[in-house]
Amino acid sequence: MKIQEALNSFQSIFSKYLNKFLPDDLLPQDLYSASKHLLKSGGKRLRPFLLYQSCKIVGGDVESIMPAAISIELIHNFTLVHDDIMDKDEFRRGVPTVHVLWGIPLAILAGDLLLSKAFEIFFECATSPKIDRNRLIDSAKKLAHAITVVAEGQALDISFEGKLFSNLITEADYLNMIYKKTATLIKVSCEIGGLLGMGDLSIVEALSKYGENIGMAFQMHDDILGIIGDEKTLGKPVGSDLRDGKCTLVLLHAAKNCDENQKKLLLKYYGKKDLTIFELNEVIDILNELGSINYVSSLAKNYVSLAKNALNVLPKSEDRDILMEIADYIVLRGY
Amino acid sequence: MKIQEALNSFQSIFSKYLNKFLPDDLLPQDLYSASKHLLKSGGKRLRPFLLYQSCKIVGGDVESIMPAAISIELIHNFTLVHDDIMDKDEFRRGVPTVHVLWGIPLAILAGDLLLSKAFEIFFECATSPKIDRNRLIDSAKKLAHAITVVAEGQALDISFEGKLFSNLITEADYLNMIYKKTATLIKVSCEIGGLLGMGDLSIVEALSKYGENIGMAFQMHDDILGIIGDEKTLGKPVGSDLRDGKCTLVLLHAAKNCDENQKKLLLKYYGKKDLTIFELNEVIDILNELGSINYVSSLAKNYVSLAKNALNVLPKSEDRDILMEIADYIVLRGY
Repeated sequence: MKIQEALNSFQSIFSKYLNKFLPDDLLPQDLYSASKHLLKSGGKRLRPFLLYQSCKIVGGDVESIMPAAISIELIHNFTLVHDDIMDKDEFRRGVPTVHVLWGIPLAILAGDLLLSKAFEIFFECATSPKIDRNRLIDSAKKLAHAITVVAEGQALDISFEGKLFSNLITEADYLNMIYKKTATLIKVSCEIGGLLGMGDLSIVEALSKYGENIGMAFQMHDDILGIIGDEKTLGKPVGSDLRDGKCTLVLLHAAKNCDENQKKLLLKYYGKKDLTIFELNEVIDILNELGSINYVSSLAKNYVSLAKNALNVLPKSEDRDILMEIADYIVLRGY
Repeated sequence: MKIQEALNSFQSIFSKYLNKFLPDDLLPQDLYSASKHLLKSGGKRLRPFLLYQSCKIVGGDVESIMPAAISIELIHNFTLVHDDIMDKDEFRRGVPTVHVLWGIPLAILAGDLLLSKAFEIFFECATSPKIDRNRLIDSAKKLAHAITVVAEGQALDISFEGKLFSNLITEADYLNMIYKKTATLIKVSCEIGGLLGMGDLSIVEALSKYGENIGMAFQMHDDILGIIGDEKTLGKPVGSDLRDGKCTLVLLHAAKNCDENQKKLLLKYYGKKDLTIFELNEVIDILNELGSINYVSSLAKNYVSLAKNALNVLPKSEDRDILMEIADYIVLRGY
């Protein structure tokens, strides 16, 4: 399986650079331990791998852009640390979240530090003569803008809470929210890889479309896993979207299509903080009856197709195959 | 008074650019209102003015660097929004803090947004042909590093809490903490102004020393105002350092030099959440008896002298006079 080999080889380069830029002896120790906690507990390294692979596919120098790859993973982790505080989530990647272990003040700071370090490290790309100055500035601007958009998306996600049956939140609102909250950072990972790799702008545009579409599919699949995933594989509790009263598309579809009896039960469990596994299963039965999970699953597969189509402007190559495989993997993964 | 005129004229340019980069119609409205709340409630605009003035003094194009000036104020506000959550502070600049008005989740996001917007806007400098690409990248790297150092300083400040009589925190620890927490951002404001203004590197170094030293004086004077300032002028409650069990130099000096009776009283009130004005005045009496306020005040004045001396490498000019006046103002201001 090409993707697994490529990912394994990338992950060892990634770890080398991560240790270089964030060594273990930085002080104050508490702050750096808190900042590195989630980074050390794994994660798929999807975004940095996409950045790397996008650079590779346009024939760029992959060593030169490793600081940008580290940077994008730090930014992803910054959003996780702060989101976990906002959503009061206590587990991620099978370990307690940062604010649970270090308290909210230090968790806020740890997130902040990940973001500032991300920019510091990003500019380490400038030490390579192979990196074009204008493209570096352009990439940094896109990166900063992406973080703004992610914050806007998270604010929308919070503002949607509890509104499932209000008729205020449409499928279009959901798509706009996940575009901002999730797809944007994945999209910009591909763009920056292509830009810094000195790719032709039409190819960068294709990579951007690819990233955007797998990003959309990624969040939809995440929402499905959040309901029917395996808790151990997932590393966090299932059903939390339901408990937190989130407006995922699975739930929006059900709310729009349910009959009176189904609605009664959904209303009873939507936003219920102490929802049991038994109750969650009752909801899953309804979601299956209504075809809500299948609906979102097909939509996600559609985005995967759009992503793969976008890559057709690139010549066939092993690197292109890897990106194609990643697109398929997005909706197959168990975590 | 030269400084007041210069500051007034700067503030009107500043407002123009702030409205340009952060117009009032950005969405989601809640998130942007929360982000702009403190920015709109005033503030001295000290850091952007220093950046502007440092650019002006080296003969740089001040219009080109206005995005960087806006950026540094956004970063300052980002630290305030997050610090207020961490310190549970409910008032600043005479208005309720962001988390009091919008809740902690949105206040975290508002801070995050200020930081990402700061970088977005910073790179708007690249639209001017008068800005050197390498200096812009160098400045961005320094800016990102400064934010990392500020987070380290805030973590130290938190870790010092409650340790006034522990003998663990020395004057050197305090100086290191305020260098990171406060002086660094003021220092980098001056550096970036000089760098982007294409100043000679020896002049940039002088501006950097100037900024660092007024930054040290600034925090010491802040600590004094936090004890004996006028609550209305200050726009926030006095005595909060004492209530929060902070290790300011005023308190460290008192803890080191007090007799048994004084220590008993200090211990009784240090960290007391519901400290009254009457009790605060008892502490102030002791601080006066021990000369603690005078001690910190002279030390601050010493840093002001160092700052002014650093400027001696620059030729005499009206712009240099303004920086000299700012240095004096740092330890004279009432808020």
